[in-house]
Amino acid sequence: MRKFIRRRVTKVGLPPGTLIPLEEKRAEKVKVTLIDYNEATIQERKVERIEECFPFKDKPTVTWINIDGIHNPEIIEKIGNYFSLHPLTLEDIMDTEHRPKIEVFEDYIFIVLKMLYHDEKEDEIKTEQISLIVGQNFVISFQEREGDLFNPIRERIRTGRGRIRKMGTDYLAYALMDTIVDNYFIIPEKLGEKVELIEKELLDNPKPQTLKVIQNSKRELIFLQKSIWPLREVLSRMERLESSLIHESTLIYLRDIYDHTIQIIDTIETSRNMLSGMLDIYISSISNKMNQVMKVLTIIATIFIPLTFVAGIYGMNFKYMVELEWKWGYPIVLLTMLGIGISMVIYFKNKRWL
Amino acid sequence: MRKFIRRRVTKVGLPPGTLIPLEEKRAEKVKVTLIDYNEATIQERKVERIEECFPFKDKPTVTWINIDGIHNPEIIEKIGNYFSLHPLTLEDIMDTEHRPKIEVFEDYIFIVLKMLYHDEKEDEIKTEQISLIVGQNFVISFQEREGDLFNPIRERIRTGRGRIRKMGTDYLAYALMDTIVDNYFIIPEKLGEKVELIEKELLDNPKPQTLKVIQNSKRELIFLQKSIWPLREVLSRMERLESSLIHESTLIYLRDIYDHTIQIIDTIETSRNMLSGMLDIYISSISNKMNQVMKVLTIIATIFIPLTFVAGIYGMNFKYMVELEWKWGYPIVLLTMLGIGISMVIYFKNKRWL
Amino acid sequence: MRKFIRRRVTKVGLPPGTLIPLEEKRAEKVKVTLIDYNEATIQERKVERIEECFPFKDKPTVTWINIDGIHNPEIIEKIGNYFSLHPLTLEDIMDTEHRPKIEVFEDYIFIVLKMLYHDEKEDEIKTEQISLIVGQNFVISFQEREGDLFNPIRERIRTGRGRIRKMGTDYLAYALMDTIVDNYFIIPEKLGEKVELIEKELLDNPKPQTLKVIQNSKRELIFLQKSIWPLREVLSRMERLESSLIHESTLIYLRDIYDHTIQIIDTIETSRNMLSGMLDIYISSISNKMNQVMKVLTIIATIFIPLTFVAGIYGMNFKYMVELEWKWGYPIVLLTMLGIGISMVIYFKNKRWL
Amino acid sequence: MRKFIRRRVTKVGLPPGTLIPLEEKRAEKVKVTLIDYNEATIQERKVERIEECFPFKDKPTVTWINIDGIHNPEIIEKIGNYFSLHPLTLEDIMDTEHRPKIEVFEDYIFIVLKMLYHDEKEDEIKTEQISLIVGQNFVISFQEREGDLFNPIRERIRTGRGRIRKMGTDYLAYALMDTIVDNYFIIPEKLGEKVELIEKELLDNPKPQTLKVIQNSKRELIFLQKSIWPLREVLSRMERLESSLIHESTLIYLRDIYDHTIQIIDTIETSRNMLSGMLDIYISSISNKMNQVMKVLTIIATIFIPLTFVAGIYGMNFKYMVELEWKWGYPIVLLTMLGIGISMVIYFKNKRWL
Amino acid sequence: MRKFIRRRVTKVGLPPGTLIPLEEKRAEKVKVTLIDYNEATIQERKVERIEECFPFKDKPTVTWINIDGIHNPEIIEKIGNYFSLHPLTLEDIMDTEHRPKIEVFEDYIFIVLKMLYHDEKEDEIKTEQISLIVGQNFVISFQEREGDLFNPIRERIRTGRGRIRKMGTDYLAYALMDTIVDNYFIIPEKLGEKVELIEKELLDNPKPQTLKVIQNSKRELIFLQKSIWPLREVLSRMERLESSLIHESTLIYLRDIYDHTIQIIDTIETSRNMLSGMLDIYISSISNKMNQVMKVLTIIATIFIPLTFVAGIYGMNFKYMVELEWKWGYPIVLLTMLGIGISMVIYFKNKRWL
Repeated sequence: MRKFIRRRVTKVGLPPGTLIPLEEKRAEKVKVTLIDYNEATIQERKVERIEECFPFKDKPTVTWINIDGIHNPEIIEKIGNYFSLHPLTLEDIMDTEHRPKIEVFEDYIFIVLKMLYHDEKEDEIKTEQISLIVGQNFVISFQEREGDLFNPIRERIRTGRGRIRKMGTDYLAYALMDTIVDNYFIIPEKLGEKVELIEKELLDNPKPQTLKVIQNSKRELIFLQKSIWPLREVLSRMERLESSLIHESTLIYLRDIYDHTIQIIDTIETSRNMLSGMLDIYISSISNKMNQVMKVLTIIATIFIPLTFVAGIYGMNFKYMVELEWKWGYPIVLLTMLGIGISMVIYFKNKRWL
Repeated sequence: MRKFIRRRVTKVGLPPGTLIPLEEKRAEKVKVTLIDYNEATIQERKVERIEECFPFKDKPTVTWINIDGIHNPEIIEKIGNYFSLHPLTLEDIMDTEHRPKIEVFEDYIFIVLKMLYHDEKEDEIKTEQISLIVGQNFVISFQEREGDLFNPIRERIRTGRGRIRKMGTDYLAYALMDTIVDNYFIIPEKLGEKVELIEKELLDNPKPQTLKVIQNSKRELIFLQKSIWPLREVLSRMERLESSLIHESTLIYLRDIYDHTIQIIDTIETSRNMLSGMLDIYISSISNKMNQVMKVLTIIATIFIPLTFVAGIYGMNFKYMVELEWKWGYPIVLLTMLGIGISMVIYFKNKRWL
Repeated sequence: MRKFIRRRVTKVGLPPGTLIPLEEKRAEKVKVTLIDYNEATIQERKVERIEECFPFKDKPTVTWINIDGIHNPEIIEKIGNYFSLHPLTLEDIMDTEHRPKIEVFEDYIFIVLKMLYHDEKEDEIKTEQISLIVGQNFVISFQEREGDLFNPIRERIRTGRGRIRKMGTDYLAYALMDTIVDNYFIIPEKLGEKVELIEKELLDNPKPQTLKVIQNSKRELIFLQKSIWPLREVLSRMERLESSLIHESTLIYLRDIYDHTIQIIDTIETSRNMLSGMLDIYISSISNKMNQVMKVLTIIATIFIPLTFVAGIYGMNFKYMVELEWKWGYPIVLLTMLGIGISMVIYFKNKRWL
Repeated sequence: MRKFIRRRVTKVGLPPGTLIPLEEKRAEKVKVTLIDYNEATIQERKVERIEECFPFKDKPTVTWINIDGIHNPEIIEKIGNYFSLHPLTLEDIMDTEHRPKIEVFEDYIFIVLKMLYHDEKEDEIKTEQISLIVGQNFVISFQEREGDLFNPIRERIRTGRGRIRKMGTDYLAYALMDTIVDNYFIIPEKLGEKVELIEKELLDNPKPQTLKVIQNSKRELIFLQKSIWPLREVLSRMERLESSLIHESTLIYLRDIYDHTIQIIDTIETSRNMLSGMLDIYISSISNKMNQVMKVLTIIATIFIPLTFVAGIYGMNFKYMVELEWKWGYPIVLLTMLGIGISMVIYFKNKRWL
Repeated sequence: MRKFIRRRVTKVGLPPGTLIPLEEKRAEKVKVTLIDYNEATIQERKVERIEECFPFKDKPTVTWINIDGIHNPEIIEKIGNYFSLHPLTLEDIMDTEHRPKIEVFEDYIFIVLKMLYHDEKEDEIKTEQISLIVGQNFVISFQEREGDLFNPIRERIRTGRGRIRKMGTDYLAYALMDTIVDNYFIIPEKLGEKVELIEKELLDNPKPQTLKVIQNSKRELIFLQKSIWPLREVLSRMERLESSLIHESTLIYLRDIYDHTIQIIDTIETSRNMLSGMLDIYISSISNKMNQVMKVLTIIATIFIPLTFVAGIYGMNFKYMVELEWKWGYPIVLLTMLGIGISMVIYFKNKRWL
């Protein structure tokens, strides 16, 4: 629940750009890695002190600084000062509740994205915010915590596979965003499995819990949509951007991510539609099962009530009841009762009530 | 189910343009045919090795290369290299989950469409992706598997019927797209039959299965809409395109396909509306039938319970119950009971409960 | 039903402009009438052979050719050839399933409209397609079958009432379209009556059939909306058209039809809303009536069951039951039962259950 | 009902501008008043013959002619001729079913508005159409029937309060429109009271009638929205109008009416939302109350049925039933029954069913 | 309730700019404070007579006049005259029912906003209108009543923290608006708590009251949305404003508030979706619980009715019923009954009805 309506540190009245981590301060160390490359050379290092990165700022090679952990305002601030980032950019990097967005500054482009992953433990889809600073010679990526998301890109840079080593920072940014969006496709797969399970359950044995699962899945889909939908706008704005930081040749790649984003949004839309249909089936099949039960029970009762009435009649203690004296009175009554019962059953069968 | 949320090979981190077929590699041979024509001459051949097509690239005649089967990355790659297609175009040709789209490159236009057909065996609507590359002198069409979809066009080219032999590659592309869209009209016909069957069933004998059929049909319609809707945009973009590859005189033909697409979208919309109405009727008629049953049964029970009570009274063993001694006690009670019963029936009839 | 999802002759693969009538070939003769007029003169004739019309094409007077019946491809083709209409225009004239649309060609404007009329026999709203070709000196109108729709216009031309004789072909086209749209206003009147009937029935005696009528009316409204909605676009495009065929002074008249179209769309919208409300009332009043019945019946049963229990007690055959020996036992028990019954009724009344 | 789908005299085929009153001809006299003013002078008169107004047309002072009653085509026609209004304008003035709209002609602006008032007698919201002709030196206002709506404006002109005497015809038109829109605010007040009453009733004692009231209020809101919504567009078009008839300084006043219109639309929207919520509460509380009743009754029946069974056992006439001979048999059975009854009640209480 | 459809003093016919407070005149004194600052100096004072503020109007320093209480038309009018505000601006300041809006005049920008706060006493979200006048050298802010909302800003100005002292009136206006929007984030937190409570209740023990709480929360959300939604438009218009009053460097800050506004709108949207889901769960779980009860009770009744019938048979008084004479008759019947009962329970269990 708490996931859907998250708290935001109330920074009411504080000047903009005040850096306060959204989560309580974690002890974890911030991990910084740096890769510097061009077509010919490549240099990779694990950075101990953030200041080690600064000399790379104006080198004509492409420098990619990846920062795992955004809970330390000092590091963010140092980077901000050295790479002359706007205070609001720094604030947005630390505010992990931000919607995906793109902001164009004179010297850099600032992009906020959501990384989605399936938390196996809690069987829930979680998001992590990823911020990208794309400058002339450098890309800085911020992740909420350490992860192996970008390893394949590192590998591609190292081995020089594809065209990544020949292209600029915009292509690197594209590659990072592409990796994030490709990751989204894992989610519908997980959802698809869940939905199939639900559907089977619906047919075999609908339970009140099924309803809860449907509702939760629906909620997750809304949450997903919220995280992915704005990306559409980000990408389409990025394509139409007239910034010297984005080269003509990169545009088609951005268009490609855009297409993938639309595709995932479509899938989410379809899943929502299917869940709505399931809700209808659920409600209808629950009430159907109930009706089935009630009908049969009511019919049983209905058959026996007139019979009991007949028995009641001959249980009366009137002095003058000739039937009681008859020798065959009892068997006749029994047969009559049987007759009534059978004819009622036949009647109900004819009426298709049974 | 699986049809609606399909898997996409997770190519996370791979460089763009990496060609991996979406389905497992099939042994089937890729079938390539080539027709080369202008107003005067025509040449048709079955191509064994893809390289045979290359000399036609720069011939001023219109060359149509049709490729049935896209599961072989090598062939796709060879074509891509020779006709200088962008790597992302090749990737999209092989990614059969793509939404219909149009992409304009300097030398060619790339169009992705969905072909729809009714699979008789599984009684389901299926899609197949068709990609078109429209160049100055050549059109390349890719189909997922072999089919006779384009045979009438081949026939028209051979016989020179209509204006196809006199026009350029854009008209050929139009003809191919028109054939695909004309095929869409088979679907509503199939759906119409199904819907009529459902409607009849609804009135005669609504069953829980009917609900499932309604829901499935609804789902199929959503699926159809997803496949056709983006085509609208594709066609309207194509019309407004300022590319030397599309001649002025072809625009009206594109407008014509556009109109047909709108028409089919309209039909789908109408069908969805009708299915929603049926869902309402279904739910209401199921509950109505149930109510009918319950009402009659309850009324039977209600009539007999007071009568049984009367019988119960005269079944009591009190010593001093004068009625029991009366000669006509028994018949009087019987008649009283009959009276009560009849007057209750009359009362219920008056109240229109029966 | 069949009305809502109509078949379209599958012309898959045929070259565009192939003329095939949508309905099976009818024997009926195509009826052609011609009126040629300007402010001073007027000439009217019934045309036997379509070729008689051709000399009027280039006369500076306004010529109105009306064609009742579009099932004869030859006539359509002849007209098409002589008045140099585009093959697709001819195809659209014969395809009676077309959405209302406007298409501007160099020499003429092509307009497709739907005429609506209430079929008294089948108590259904039906459509007929009307196509207009507006040229410099001629207007050609195509109707699906013979009708008296345009008689008032003919009368106006004959008598010279209004300004029609002083204006050009665009005004004639306007007059024809205005007549069609004015005719639409009959439909909501018919619908209004139906809806009033339904509403009365809903309050007096809701029946399952009422639901069907509501659903059918809803469906008819959707169908109407489909037929009229695109007209809005047609008219607004027509107004903004920069064609020498539409004179400045006619624009305000087009705006007037536009307003009427909006008005009728509004009425349809309102009717749909009202029908939705009725569906709610229907469902609620059906279930309300049902509940009412069940409640009363259950209460009757509930009152008698405890009483029957009491009777059952004194029907037991224990040897030592002193009450049975009491002289006043029986009347006391009867009174007790009466007391229980009355107090239960009072209790239920107090709880407002009865 | 009839109010929502109104008839329109079918003028099918008549030339545009034919003046036919929508209501049957009323005997009532048309009342015309005239005020002519500038900053310095003011002249007011009741006009007997419409021709008295004509000399004011070209006077540089502002002349306001107010006409109560539009059922007399002759007067409308005379005004139309003298002030050179377009025939369609005259037709629209008499067609009281028109949507609010603005039409700009060379010499004048034509505005159609809806006046709303609460008819105390029928407890219904009614509309009256008000048309305004705004020329260079004159404003002509048409009302459906006599009313005191514009009296405050007359008063302001007479006393010279505010800036009205210093401004032109556009400001006068603004003042009239403002008065009309200010009047709209009475409606939500009335509705608010109604809604509060409904809400109270819903909680105290939901009745089927409540549903009807909710549905009617909903319908009235839809009707209101239809009348007010297009005004939004009218005003925003008026603001953007580049006509010499609207002075720059009046624009801000138009913006002000626009804001008020949005505000009233917002209120209507909110009311609709609240009524929808009430419908949900109604349905749920009706079914809740019903369930409550059924549950208690069923529980009573359920408790007594097993007890009656026990009584039935000892009512059997077997010869060898030792319990019947026991001295304490009867009291033991009675106590057992009491025990069963009490334990069932306790069980139901524990299960929270009672 | 009354909160949602508020009254507006019917100023029908009054000239625009007539100042009437919306609430009845309160005795409370209007509190005015003034801060005048630039980078170097700062002057703060509590103003007794409004005239004290006037000398600051043309001082080049930034002057912020804050007015708590808008119920005194005289003060508003004096300010209006001296700072040459448009009469409509003054009217809007006093009309506390206004939608958020921005209005650009030649000398100043006029902004209306809603402040939201959670009233602890009534456990309700309330709004207060805040109006801002942003001139070249001055900002005037109007609040409905005294509050400490802007204290942090005052503090920042006093201490010179952040860049506020170095920037102009536009930045001050931004800071005020930012404070208001930051305050909005308290609301979803409160709502989140409420929603969690509701959800828990839904699972543990759904009560009719829960429905009311859900509906009320829904209503509050609609109300919130109404208050915040137009702010989106205000901010986006402000960003695109080409006024000399807004400096280029402030734009990014406005974009930042815009982002926050979107974020809060998103949260509200999500909450609405969740509440809708809860309504579904509520209805379904209520009816589920009900069904559970009914089913068990009906089963009990169904089991005993046939048994009672058997007992009834042997309660009949026929002379010749051999079973009655048998020694083991009674125990056999008892065992038979037990058998019937047990086999019915087993049957119901098998059918999963129990």
